[in-house]
Amino acid sequence: MAPPLYQTVIDSIIARIAAGDLLPGGMLPSETQLALDTGVSQGTARKALMMLEQHGIVRREQGRGTFVTARTPEKSLFNFFRLRPKDGRVVSPVVTSERILQRPATEAEREVLQGAPEQVTEIRRTRSLLDVPSVLETSVVSSDLFPGLERRSPLPSALYVLYQQAYGCIILHAEESMAAVLSTPDVIEALQLPGPTPLLQVDRKARDILGRTVEIRHSLYRTDELRYAIKLD
Amino acid sequence: MAPPLYQTVIDSIIARIAAGDLLPGGMLPSETQLALDTGVSQGTARKALMMLEQHGIVRREQGRGTFVTARTPEKSLFNFFRLRPKDGRVVSPVVTSERILQRPATEAEREVLQGAPEQVTEIRRTRSLLDVPSVLETSVVSSDLFPGLERRSPLPSALYVLYQQAYGCIILHAEESMAAVLSTPDVIEALQLPGPTPLLQVDRKARDILGRTVEIRHSLYRTDELRYAIKLD
Repeated sequence: MAPPLYQTVIDSIIARIAAGDLLPGGMLPSETQLALDTGVSQGTARKALMMLEQHGIVRREQGRGTFVTARTPEKSLFNFFRLRPKDGRVVSPVVTSERILQRPATEAEREVLQGAPEQVTEIRRTRSLLDVPSVLETSVVSSDLFPGLERRSPLPSALYVLYQQAYGCIILHAEESMAAVLSTPDVIEALQLPGPTPLLQVDRKARDILGRTVEIRHSLYRTDELRYAIKLD
Repeated sequence: MAPPLYQTVIDSIIARIAAGDLLPGGMLPSETQLALDTGVSQGTARKALMMLEQHGIVRREQGRGTFVTARTPEKSLFNFFRLRPKDGRVVSPVVTSERILQRPATEAEREVLQGAPEQVTEIRRTRSLLDVPSVLETSVVSSDLFPGLERRSPLPSALYVLYQQAYGCIILHAEESMAAVLSTPDVIEALQLPGPTPLLQVDRKARDILGRTVEIRHSLYRTDELRYAIKLD
């Protein structure tokens, strides 16, 4: 199925933002110009701008034009990495191991991931916070949508920044499903735990600007000294 | 310290919404009328309406007036009770035990709760989902801000609806801090667990429309068959 036409326009704008060609605060071409540049009708260009505005990527100012908002990769990393020391300060996690493999998608992955991929790329990482191994994280993406990921190892700490800068894919939403579980022997070894320990298990579906699920992530967090902090509205 | 003047206006509007005097979709008085009704300046009335709009309580339509949005107590219950069966459907929790007591506030509670109360009311409840005892919940509020709570027992399942309808207090935001913990003997007994079980511990600070922390809630969730579902943006 071909993507809708307005998506072509959205993709071209996001690619220009990702490339640094359009900076936060910078002005976008007019609807008319955008339609000419991308070969779509003015109505389609307008729809693309409206969607970008709805998602906070651009801001339209009456009589002035359309501007890139100040959303930055750092902000989006901050939004999606929620593990904190108990005092609430923000500490950067350090990736301590990484393994990337390609394998056939499971049936469940094909059902959930955009494009129902046959092949997926799996990224397994451990992260430390304040020198304590605290996170075991498995991210699964379509190998079609993220070609060559395995050749980019070691990946940056913030995968969503990479998704945006290298693949024009902006993660804006995530649904998470949480549970408390007891560590299994392999997890005890990977996180160097003193013994069986309750861990916070977080299953995430990350969605892009069009609401498509582009990544499935399974994380285990050590929470004896750390907390997973969220806001509800 | 006296509350700011615009808060008087906000409180009077919220009380009218809570009382059912202003229904969703209903039109509010004009700024001028509101200022006359509540004895404040038109600027103060405008500030109150702007804050209510910012929080999604009202919607201003240019040239038409200001209207109550469709936010309902049910919606807010849905937003704040996040425990679900694994398939994601929404199941109503049933309160199976309740105990309300008044006691002096701890130092930590005085620091966090609006008004630094000397006395707090503590509500301890257990909840079942699908006939399985699954939630152990302790809510702590200022006895000054919520007088007579103990005489209202049994309280409705959704405390935030009660806070709104009986005390004009609308909970709009919550900060949560999560961890996985192992059940202690008293929790094993209260939730009738088969033995030591990993539980999801959620510490919540609930904030009202003005961002004041009005409730501290400590919850333990059984998550072997259930999941805590959230959205991140």
